[in-house]
Amino acid sequence: MIDKTAKIGRNVRIGEYVVIEKNVVIGDDVVIGHHAVIKEDTIIGNHVIIDDLVSLGHRPSSNKKMARKPLPDLAPLVISNYVKVGSNCVVYRGSTISEGVFIGDLASIREKVKVGKGSIIGRNAMVENNTRIGERVTIQTSAYVTADMLIEDEVFIGPCFSSSNDKYMGEGNYPHQGPVLKKGAKIGNNATFLPGVVVGEKAIVGAGAVVTKNIEANIIAVGNPAKKL
Amino acid sequence: MIDKTAKIGRNVRIGEYVVIEKNVVIGDDVVIGHHAVIKEDTIIGNHVIIDDLVSLGHRPSSNKKMARKPLPDLAPLVISNYVKVGSNCVVYRGSTISEGVFIGDLASIREKVKVGKGSIIGRNAMVENNTRIGERVTIQTSAYVTADMLIEDEVFIGPCFSSSNDKYMGEGNYPHQGPVLKKGAKIGNNATFLPGVVVGEKAIVGAGAVVTKNIEANIIAVGNPAKKL
Amino acid sequence: MIDKTAKIGRNVRIGEYVVIEKNVVIGDDVVIGHHAVIKEDTIIGNHVIIDDLVSLGHRPSSNKKMARKPLPDLAPLVISNYVKVGSNCVVYRGSTISEGVFIGDLASIREKVKVGKGSIIGRNAMVENNTRIGERVTIQTSAYVTADMLIEDEVFIGPCFSSSNDKYMGEGNYPHQGPVLKKGAKIGNNATFLPGVVVGEKAIVGAGAVVTKNIEANIIAVGNPAKKL
Repeated sequence: MIDKTAKIGRNVRIGEYVVIEKNVVIGDDVVIGHHAVIKEDTIIGNHVIIDDLVSLGHRPSSNKKMARKPLPDLAPLVISNYVKVGSNCVVYRGSTISEGVFIGDLASIREKVKVGKGSIIGRNAMVENNTRIGERVTIQTSAYVTADMLIEDEVFIGPCFSSSNDKYMGEGNYPHQGPVLKKGAKIGNNATFLPGVVVGEKAIVGAGAVVTKNIEANIIAVGNPAKKL
Repeated sequence: MIDKTAKIGRNVRIGEYVVIEKNVVIGDDVVIGHHAVIKEDTIIGNHVIIDDLVSLGHRPSSNKKMARKPLPDLAPLVISNYVKVGSNCVVYRGSTISEGVFIGDLASIREKVKVGKGSIIGRNAMVENNTRIGERVTIQTSAYVTADMLIEDEVFIGPCFSSSNDKYMGEGNYPHQGPVLKKGAKIGNNATFLPGVVVGEKAIVGAGAVVTKNIEANIIAVGNPAKKL
Repeated sequence: MIDKTAKIGRNVRIGEYVVIEKNVVIGDDVVIGHHAVIKEDTIIGNHVIIDDLVSLGHRPSSNKKMARKPLPDLAPLVISNYVKVGSNCVVYRGSTISEGVFIGDLASIREKVKVGKGSIIGRNAMVENNTRIGERVTIQTSAYVTADMLIEDEVFIGPCFSSSNDKYMGEGNYPHQGPVLKKGAKIGNNATFLPGVVVGEKAIVGAGAVVTKNIEANIIAVGNPAKKL
């Protein structure tokens, strides 16, 4: 089902049972897998590959208990040239996926996220809203990137990374702040980050570490709680 | 494909390529996304939102090695009024999702689970069978809720929570018991729970803690193994 | 949409909106769920159950930053007799799923993986490429099995297991080596494994342990870092 207001470029291969909603714009030399859903207003560049069973351009929603209310004025989802989106992914309206980004299967990226050029979002990785991811960043499989996080260029995040942004764990209207990972920091697999901690440039955090305080630049920290090695 | 025995209420918006199997009942003012699969006998209330690419009312199955055999007599899946089910979710037959529950994208809930009113099941969270979740509970993104667990009202479970219920790790026919989280307990992100541990009312377990023994009410516990702060 | 070159056996039940691509071979007494995608050349045995919304026979791809380039010569995906594949799974071309394997919902298995007879790949488990999994292995829900890993027969891996294979965390062209889990080893939930560590036969690693060095056969190891109990 392709809405008649959608604009489709040249040399676009569209799979079976695809849904392209109104005002979608798709560039040239794009491949769209079977059962893909491209929701209204989504903008897709050239040489993009979208795999099977994805949902792109999703609008956020909530229930009564949730702190953050949906945003009525979100810009369309923008997927730039040479992006690859894996199977069964869910990417929200209001985000920008820059040139050459790779998104693995079963991953999800919420609204108001920017993913910088050439970065990798691993399979089954979850990226929450309002997070900014730099260029040439690697976020590995099953990592959890919380809301309101800042990840600078060339950061490496190992598999199963876990972050948080709410000190009071749901107590109410306190401000939320995710961790900040400075340029070139490297985080081992299954590390745990408390809200708002800052990891300095080129610091290394070991696998399984629990980061409760800021980590200086250029050091190695390991353990629970994480300490300088 | 809507089976002719399905009963669909007033003002129901049904997406493209939806499958509604026999004896499904859908209330009024419901929205059903593209490629949604609603399996036989599923009961959906009023004002429900079902996103794209979900599978609802799934029957459990197993292979020879698995301890639990499928149950032939499971009741239909019940999804109450004002529930929201995210994209690419899988929810099983034999469970009840109460009024106002929010289920995030890519989550899954198995059979014989009750989720109480107004609770949140985060994106990519996995909830196993026979678990009871109270009212106004928050289970955050990518949390793992094992089988035979009891989660009382107003519990907060951080992202990437990990629980277990099998002391003997697959050795055979021992009884399984998941953790018990009492009313208002709060669990930090990426905490690890051993089988059968009990966390008292309003206790707080720190991020990355490994809970090997019961935690008293109203205390804070952190570390590996978790100790009173 | 069933390609006319596909060979379908006797007594095969095919759901709605299924896509079966060219040269697919399907045996007898097979059930294929709604919206399933079976990609070209995939070989499916007898008595196989494929649930809704899966993508089978996927080809790997990459972006400029990724170390591993796609392999042009991958053999077709082989799914043997009596296998069950859950809803919303993604399984790649170039892998072999042996007789009686159970794959849970929302799981993914990449290319060049062999899963031995009767093993279980839990829901939302992610298995990377080039990994060999023995017979009667259990990999529980949301476990992460990295690339280049060796898992011998009868190993038990708890939920939320996290492994890694890259000591230099993305620094470049160093060889990668995942952990080795010897016959009958048991790993607790949410344990963290560094690259290349070896766990001996029948050793037990506790829940939440961080394994930084080899673990001898028949011992119990717990803590961060993991030490003999």
